[in-house]
Order: sequence, then C-alpha cells, then structure tokens
Amino acid sequence: MKILVLGGGGFIGFHLVNDLVAAGHVVKVLGRNRVPSRPLLPDVQYISGDLADSKLLRDALQDVDAVAHLASGTVPATADKDPGRDIQINLLGTLSVLDDMAACGVKRLLYVSSGGTVYGKPQEIPIPEGHILDPISSYGIVKVAIESYLKLYETKFGLRPIVIRASNPYGPYQGNLGVQGIIGTYLNRALNQQPLEIWGDGSAIRDYIYIKDLTSLCVAALESEKIGIYNGGSGTGTSVSHIAEVISEVVGSPIPIIYKPARSLDVPISVLDIERAKLDFNWDTKIGLREGVASVWSWLKANHAAS
Amino acid sequence: MKILVLGGGGFIGFHLVNDLVAAGHVVKVLGRNRVPSRPLLPDVQYISGDLADSKLLRDALQDVDAVAHLASGTVPATADKDPGRDIQINLLGTLSVLDDMAACGVKRLLYVSSGGTVYGKPQEIPIPEGHILDPISSYGIVKVAIESYLKLYETKFGLRPIVIRASNPYGPYQGNLGVQGIIGTYLNRALNQQPLEIWGDGSAIRDYIYIKDLTSLCVAALESEKIGIYNGGSGTGTSVSHIAEVISEVVGSPIPIIYKPARSLDVPISVLDIERAKLDFNWDTKIGLREGVASVWSWLKANHAAS
Repeated sequence: MKILVLGGGGFIGFHLVNDLVAAGHVVKVLGRNRVPSRPLLPDVQYISGDLADSKLLRDALQDVDAVAHLASGTVPATADKDPGRDIQINLLGTLSVLDDMAACGVKRLLYVSSGGTVYGKPQEIPIPEGHILDPISSYGIVKVAIESYLKLYETKFGLRPIVIRASNPYGPYQGNLGVQGIIGTYLNRALNQQPLEIWGDGSAIRDYIYIKDLTSLCVAALESEKIGIYNGGSGTGTSVSHIAEVISEVVGSPIPIIYKPARSLDVPISVLDIERAKLDFNWDTKIGLREGVASVWSWLKANHAAS
Repeated sequence: MKILVLGGGGFIGFHLVNDLVAAGHVVKVLGRNRVPSRPLLPDVQYISGDLADSKLLRDALQDVDAVAHLASGTVPATADKDPGRDIQINLLGTLSVLDDMAACGVKRLLYVSSGGTVYGKPQEIPIPEGHILDPISSYGIVKVAIESYLKLYETKFGLRPIVIRASNPYGPYQGNLGVQGIIGTYLNRALNQQPLEIWGDGSAIRDYIYIKDLTSLCVAALESEKIGIYNGGSGTGTSVSHIAEVISEVVGSPIPIIYKPARSLDVPISVLDIERAKLDFNWDTKIGLREGVASVWSWLKANHAAS
C-alpha cells in the first residue's frame, strides 16, 4: 500500500514507518517538525507542514491508499494545562484531516488513540474495549471525541477507521525528558547517575508495551480489512516501583529514588484487555519487560553520552 | 440566588428564567440575539453578547451565585453539517465560560445536556444515567465532551456542576419551523392546514416532556446541593405515529400525513430513566402528553394567526 503517516516523526510514528517500509509499503510522512534525535529513514518521503493545512494535505493524499494518523500537538500534561489548545490542534485538526480524506476519496485510516486515558478510572481489570469511557483528563476527553467522529465519518462518508488504543509504549528513540515515558526517563537518569523520581507511592500500575510490539499490531491492523477499536497493550500490569527494580537490575546497580506527590489526574491502575487484537490479527507481544528495558538501556548507552 | 442564565432567550431558557423569577431568584440573561417571538420578562436584566466574550462574561459574573448554561449555537441537524463550527461555538465556548467562572470564583453551574443524543443507540430502555455514552451525531459528541470537561473542572477548580440530560421538551414558545420540536412543528402545520411529515415509518420512539416539567426539574436541581448527572424526561416513550394521532384528536379533525425517508442519524428509540431525579429532587412530571399538546394548541391558536 501507499501510506501517508501523519506524525511520523514522533516516537510511535518513527517505529511504525520503519515497520511499514520493512513490510514493503511505500510511505510518506507529513509532520510539523523534524525531531533531530530520530534519524530520517531511507526510501521515505518527508513533507514538512501542518496537518490542518488542507492544500498541503490534499496534495499529499493524491496517490495514497491509507492514512496512519499519529499526530498529536499535546501530551497528557500539556493538554490539561490548555484544553482549548488541545481541542484546536488535535480535535479540529483531526476533523480537518477527515474532511480532506473524504474529499480525496481516501477511506482507510489507522488512528492511534490512548488506552491509558479514554477509560478513566477502570471498573474492571484488564479493561476491555467495551468498558465505559469516562476520561478524567483533557487528553482523554479529546481522544474520545475523535474516536466518536471517526464513527460518524464512517456512517457519513464510508471512512474505514481502525483505532488502536495504545497503552504505555517504551523503547529506543522515545523522548526521555520526563514529559512522557517513565522507562526512557528513568534509564536516562540512571545513565546520568541521577535518582529516579516516583510521583506517588510507586503503586500506580500501568500496561507497558515494547514499541515494536505496538507497531507490529498497528501494521497488522492497517493491513487487515477490520474496522473498529482495539486495545494495544501488553495485557500485563506493572507498578512504578517494579519498573524501578527492573531498571536497577538491568543497569546493574541500585539507584536512589525520590518520592514526590501524586498527580491528581492519574488513575491508580490501567491494564488493557488485548484478547480482541490477539484474536483478530493473530498478533501477540514478543518482548517481555526485562528484555525490553535491557534493549532501551543498550541503545541509550550506545547513542547518548552521559551529560 | 443571583443567577446568570446563558441562552436565556432560547426555548428552554425562556421558561427557566420565568420559573426562576417566580421562585424568587434574581436573574440576568446573556445571549447572542433576542428571539423576537419570545417576550422579554419583567424584572430580568438582558445582556446582549457572546458567551465567549470573556470581558463581558466576567463583568456579568461579578455578583452572581450560579450560572445556568443553556446556550447552544447549533441544533442536532446543523451540528452535523458543520462539526467544526459545533466544536468552536459549543465546546470551546463552554470552556471559555468555565475558565471565566473559575476566574470569578463562581462555582455553581446548571448545564442542560442532551438525553436524546449522548447515549447513541440504547442498549436498554429506559436509559439510566450510567448507560454507555456512544453518540452518533456531532451534537451528541460535543455534549459528551462538555460533560467530561465539567467533571475535569470539578476536580481542578472546585466547580459544582449539575447536568440535566433533557429528552424532547415541547411547549408554548418553542420554535416551530421544523428544525427542532416535532409537536410544535406539527401543530403549526395543522393550524396552517398542511399535512404532517413523518421521517421514516412513524415507529421512532422519543421521550417527550412538557417544558414546565423540565424547567421545574432544572430549578430544583440548581437550588439543591447535588452535583452530577440527571436524566430529565418523562420516562415514557411515544411513537411519532402516536404523536400524530394525539394531534388529530386535540385539533379535532384528522390531518393527512406524508411519509419521508428516515434520517440516518436518528436512533430508533430513546426513553430516559428518570428515577434518579425523582428520588433526589422529590420531583415528578405533572403534565401528560394529551394535556400538554392541548396546551400548546391553545397557545398557538391565541398567539399565531394562520399564515
């Protein structure tokens, strides 16, 4: 397929583009800025611009079979500081993409949503896709609204959307400045011989998935004929304290921990039920937590001098 | 209380303002336009302007105890034609109101949401407030997002929101140009000796509530200390065909019916479970369908010459 990846310069996008090219697809990337820390990939066309720029997007859509939309102008923390901006960039930006796709007759869309925020406080663990949606952050509210608009455009314009609600991906090339991604952040601090910071008591449980396991799911989903919503996680819950332990083990020395107050918008636990994705895509995760963390650590040591 | 009503010139707003004044409250109304067909009420201060005009709104909020937010720049049909505009006016407009309320320290908010659109296709009848939210129209998607932001502002700024998810209100002073409100539209056509138009086969079931029953619920909710979400309907389902029958009975002569294709975004049935409101507010509906329709018919004959 010829695939246009929106947000292909981001962490998930970078790995997804890599996997799509490896699977024989022709890939174009459209994004606002290049991320200097991630290399450009051979055989990929990079277009610099804003996804809300309809002329640019419609040009890019001309010979395309499918769109993978991973662009986000915010992360959970920045979205909550300025919900209006979150709505402008992500919700209205996505509507603009959907209108352009409808105008250009491109119907296949992979959208990466947020399994960690759309459900709010879970009523059951692991969380199935049919769980009630009760987001407690602007980031989650906007993702829920976008998912609803995808269904509306399916009815109105024959869009064929497939949504992956990603849990907490980690891996090489993730940003590690503490905004997103606790594993990369912790390993980077370990590399710089700084203590790890735990927000709360360390009992918060998340579903960490190695990035290649997530992107292999995205590729399988996009290549399929399926429509609908799928959780994309490991299906396994891990506490922050346990992450810190695994990191100490992988690094080979104990690392001091500083405890800070819990953030009010965090849910205490989030683990995704991934049976639907396993069943429909003959997919499963391959990289366990210890192996994944070791892989990030090796990459970090090879690519980043301690600063 | 001193209450600022946003959208107080609309159909529900007009009746709510009336009831609030009757209950002894001091009421200000802020809205974009006056609606010529609805009279201005004595003892009410009317402010003309846009709710997204922060300076105007903050001035209006100065001496206010509570806000009743009924403003909407769209109805379901117009929202779906231009979702971007729906988001701009209603979602971003409401966020602007919430920010202004937070800045002015006004914490009590009554918000009138949409019981007919937030749930999508019902999985059970009558629909309880805890039913999954799966809206199939832009109007409903935006209402769901607004409700989520109300909860977020409750957590972040101590907002005390009470939400009434209204079903299908009808009564005197409703617009009757066919955009919203089948009962007023049908009665107006009967007055003008035009046939009734039924979209679909007439089996679509809705929960019609006489406007005074809805506004009495709104007053009780706003006066209470409760926070949260309440369905505001009659709890009774009525088919479009039955509405047409009741109208023929009330008018006193059979009225011809023209059948038109169903609109794809209509859900087949919507009836709200209103036990929570009954229990918490010692409230109940008082006006049955036949009595309500007769009341609108009397008002229409007295106030509108057939055109």
